[in-house]
Amino acid sequence: MNLEDIIQDAYQKVKNLDDQGKVASYIPELGHVDSGNFGVHISTIDQINFGVGNCYDKFSIQSVAKVLSLSLAYRIVGDKIWERVGVEPSGTAFNSLVQLEADKGIPRNPFLNAGAIVISDILLSNLENPKQDFLDFVRGISNNTTLEYSSRIAESEKAIGYTNVALCNFIKSFGNIKNEPADVLDFYFDLCSLEMSCKELSELFLYLANNGFSIQSDKSILSESQSKRINALMQTCGFYDESGEFAFKVGLPGKSGVGGGIIAIHPDQYAIAVWSPKLNDKGNSFKGMKFLEEFTTKSKSSIF
Amino acid sequence: MNLEDIIQDAYQKVKNLDDQGKVASYIPELGHVDSGNFGVHISTIDQINFGVGNCYDKFSIQSVAKVLSLSLAYRIVGDKIWERVGVEPSGTAFNSLVQLEADKGIPRNPFLNAGAIVISDILLSNLENPKQDFLDFVRGISNNTTLEYSSRIAESEKAIGYTNVALCNFIKSFGNIKNEPADVLDFYFDLCSLEMSCKELSELFLYLANNGFSIQSDKSILSESQSKRINALMQTCGFYDESGEFAFKVGLPGKSGVGGGIIAIHPDQYAIAVWSPKLNDKGNSFKGMKFLEEFTTKSKSSIF
Amino acid sequence: MNLEDIIQDAYQKVKNLDDQGKVASYIPELGHVDSGNFGVHISTIDQINFGVGNCYDKFSIQSVAKVLSLSLAYRIVGDKIWERVGVEPSGTAFNSLVQLEADKGIPRNPFLNAGAIVISDILLSNLENPKQDFLDFVRGISNNTTLEYSSRIAESEKAIGYTNVALCNFIKSFGNIKNEPADVLDFYFDLCSLEMSCKELSELFLYLANNGFSIQSDKSILSESQSKRINALMQTCGFYDESGEFAFKVGLPGKSGVGGGIIAIHPDQYAIAVWSPKLNDKGNSFKGMKFLEEFTTKSKSSIF
Amino acid sequence: MNLEDIIQDAYQKVKNLDDQGKVASYIPELGHVDSGNFGVHISTIDQINFGVGNCYDKFSIQSVAKVLSLSLAYRIVGDKIWERVGVEPSGTAFNSLVQLEADKGIPRNPFLNAGAIVISDILLSNLENPKQDFLDFVRGISNNTTLEYSSRIAESEKAIGYTNVALCNFIKSFGNIKNEPADVLDFYFDLCSLEMSCKELSELFLYLANNGFSIQSDKSILSESQSKRINALMQTCGFYDESGEFAFKVGLPGKSGVGGGIIAIHPDQYAIAVWSPKLNDKGNSFKGMKFLEEFTTKSKSSIF
Repeated sequence: MNLEDIIQDAYQKVKNLDDQGKVASYIPELGHVDSGNFGVHISTIDQINFGVGNCYDKFSIQSVAKVLSLSLAYRIVGDKIWERVGVEPSGTAFNSLVQLEADKGIPRNPFLNAGAIVISDILLSNLENPKQDFLDFVRGISNNTTLEYSSRIAESEKAIGYTNVALCNFIKSFGNIKNEPADVLDFYFDLCSLEMSCKELSELFLYLANNGFSIQSDKSILSESQSKRINALMQTCGFYDESGEFAFKVGLPGKSGVGGGIIAIHPDQYAIAVWSPKLNDKGNSFKGMKFLEEFTTKSKSSIF
Repeated sequence: MNLEDIIQDAYQKVKNLDDQGKVASYIPELGHVDSGNFGVHISTIDQINFGVGNCYDKFSIQSVAKVLSLSLAYRIVGDKIWERVGVEPSGTAFNSLVQLEADKGIPRNPFLNAGAIVISDILLSNLENPKQDFLDFVRGISNNTTLEYSSRIAESEKAIGYTNVALCNFIKSFGNIKNEPADVLDFYFDLCSLEMSCKELSELFLYLANNGFSIQSDKSILSESQSKRINALMQTCGFYDESGEFAFKVGLPGKSGVGGGIIAIHPDQYAIAVWSPKLNDKGNSFKGMKFLEEFTTKSKSSIF
Repeated sequence: MNLEDIIQDAYQKVKNLDDQGKVASYIPELGHVDSGNFGVHISTIDQINFGVGNCYDKFSIQSVAKVLSLSLAYRIVGDKIWERVGVEPSGTAFNSLVQLEADKGIPRNPFLNAGAIVISDILLSNLENPKQDFLDFVRGISNNTTLEYSSRIAESEKAIGYTNVALCNFIKSFGNIKNEPADVLDFYFDLCSLEMSCKELSELFLYLANNGFSIQSDKSILSESQSKRINALMQTCGFYDESGEFAFKVGLPGKSGVGGGIIAIHPDQYAIAVWSPKLNDKGNSFKGMKFLEEFTTKSKSSIF
Repeated sequence: MNLEDIIQDAYQKVKNLDDQGKVASYIPELGHVDSGNFGVHISTIDQINFGVGNCYDKFSIQSVAKVLSLSLAYRIVGDKIWERVGVEPSGTAFNSLVQLEADKGIPRNPFLNAGAIVISDILLSNLENPKQDFLDFVRGISNNTTLEYSSRIAESEKAIGYTNVALCNFIKSFGNIKNEPADVLDFYFDLCSLEMSCKELSELFLYLANNGFSIQSDKSILSESQSKRINALMQTCGFYDESGEFAFKVGLPGKSGVGGGIIAIHPDQYAIAVWSPKLNDKGNSFKGMKFLEEFTTKSKSSIF
């Protein structure tokens, strides 16, 4: 069976599942999305592009953007970023403050909110116009100049982001935030508000399946080693306290967001994006997780 | 450069490094080993076997055996074992009791001591002559009838294994140990006392690089899915609170033991075993980690 | 209103309350007691003795005995015992292992199980015939030679005391238990099996209301300073994670046991014992707590 | 020996001790104080007033003010405040976020920063002009209209209070802060900036030694029960993770502040204030603790 057929099959099977998830409600604007949306899109390094369902509808990629901000910070600062954020899975929920206290302000990894906030701080210190420069970086990866932030989503999150204000100020109290917390968070909420479709997402992330080299823009985004290491981080830390489960059942590096999007990478082969807004109780897309499990099982494409 | 040359190069480079590790001393007998030992052996599914240094000397594989006991329990009981042990990285040290309390006696994963003790309990309930049956299982994988427990090591550990007695009784208090703690620990200490050389270790673990099928004995040890899942678990949980670092720097599923041994798997390609007794402060072989980082970097064989 | 009338009033009022507690069931033998029992007895330094209800029925004093073993250890070893156990409230349940890990085997206080086990270990190292010597010490305080252990209760607890086995071995792994865990626990379970009535209990504990001097036996059990310090410890740590609540609502130093007994001390005035087997969800006697709150409110005898 | 002589003796003895403490430096303005200051003042319900050393010099009372804000909130709202803050010792440092996460935004007690912030929020919701009304309340207790906030200290703390910003926003994320975090903190930092001398402090707190009734202003500040309960809270929770030690060695309810001040209460007898800026490693005045230990030992006035 070819990839397209496997995707079609898995999509149909999961589409009919009873969705036990719930749309994220803590960011009010996210609650307005149609919870029945379900889309999938794959982009391979052999230039196959294929999608089903709502694969052309834009959604809020939220934490999936943490991979992009990490990529830019890693590109600019190199391995010195690991002095300020770790590479270990945390065993705790995405917004936990507990480990931060034990670890004296060094977040366990860059995909926890705490870690992504530190990465935002690093970018703020290294970019002239952080918001525009970061957008240009993202657009440049896949030559997609239509990508945009959603000020509506960013504002909605800023209005109620008390946990993130707590996290950022707590890290600041340990000295691991260099800029003003309000500025760091402003930038962080903007990053997370990026919107794109499954098609745009799988195209964008293809560089991580291709050792850091972007086929669309014909340029190197990350070194081969950096690209592999970001994949490794997605594998061990990409799904909060469900990271082990994802490695176990799906077997691909990946990253999820509370908007219901998931990107997964098969090194040397493809990037695949899924979107379905209802989240399981770990905060990851219910149908997205099911689809990817079905897909890698049928295609036998777990990297393990 | 071919695999042999890369191994030779990496071996020489790491051999000359200043070893900052320390031989594990908490099991008295382990402290008697010559700390200068350093061996490497690779076994590929194309039937290449190649080793350097002390690759034919036997050592105590300790926690590496947890992969073997998990394999046998998974083979016998199937996915029901995941009702009694999780698949998530823990973010804590190998012998931590903290999470066990929060998780009400369900260890986070089968490679923590707590998890391996639960697996031992499962085997105890399912094997007629646990100690002999398990040894037969291990010998049968690679048709190596010379493999043996070390009663000397097992006794040494039993005499001072207070932390493990604590762990086992604590899990028992939550009802997740079915047999008598003393019996479970007796079996557990035996498992961990298995001795083999790097050569024997890489040959033995080749089934995990081959989708669960043993080339030497021409039989299926685990199903393809089970084999992939154990690799996934090794990737996310194989090195205690250095698991993320190992994925990040080495990029292979693997498992370490306090005897200084490490096994790493490249799915569809090879199993590689390293041994050097001095451990870094996370409890993993200092030179073993360095060698594997060097090896996958040079051979570009990270799975990511 | 005199003390007797206040006690009668409070007793009647609480007797008719709907008892929302549950008899401790984790020690099987404790579950066999008649849950409707309810007794109170006061002994004052002015030699008033007065009781109501089941105040002459014997019950298992359990953790109340921790004050007695602490008294003997403090008497023998002096302030050196504080090198092995702390004096701080723990903020956690009575059998928690979490803090023990953070505090490297030094229990927060001698009224947690962990702390009482360390005290038992100290006694074991300092008494010739620990079990008999301790009993003699207790009998000698109030000249009551009828006090006895219950081997039935001790055996029942030994058979299922997995959590305490875990605690003791965990502390041993940090080096803060000097004897064999099995011997320490054997002695510890014996201590906790002491049986007495409310009358015997309030008479026995009168020395702590009298600056360490026993009226009945006309001898000094503890120095004035030692006696005050044990009262202070009972105030801050006597009721596990309900210690603050007890200070807040009752306002007397005291100690509870899972048998449903509570002793409370008003320095320079009296010792009062209550017994009612059903426990609230913090593990303290439901009616016992209610009675003492009522009693100190009516008698205005909170020490605060 | 009378009280005055005992105070003189204890003062001289502690004055000559090698002070192993350090002046709090995290609030820059606090660091400017002369670290050699050392004052003591007692006020008894028999109208004795006596002081030594720098007992008339004003200092920043900091966390000692938490008792005053709690008193006002308790007076206004009554026992409903315990729905939003607990009465248990925490076993952790004053600014810990860990328990707050476990307890879902309900601080363990009102003397932790987290708890005092919730109390500030309650006052903010119940006072028309919070800053002025609170000052009027404090001045009214002892008829001392000269008491003032220090805007210099408050501003200094606002500029670097990242941990408190974190705490307040974290509690807000659980819904247990009703006003805007910035407003709550503004008020909280003002409260903590109150300045007074040992003499003013012991006079002010005499109401807690007198069952809630102020002798100076001849009016009831708190009911007898409320007054006793605040004393009980000071006993179990007044010194962060040194509360047990203070009960153990000093034996009086009390409260310390990072400015180096301590107030201690002997119910029905006196209030005593000590000030010495250098803090021990638990954040309590080094000489203040030593003096009070010496004082209650010599005067045998521990409440236990």
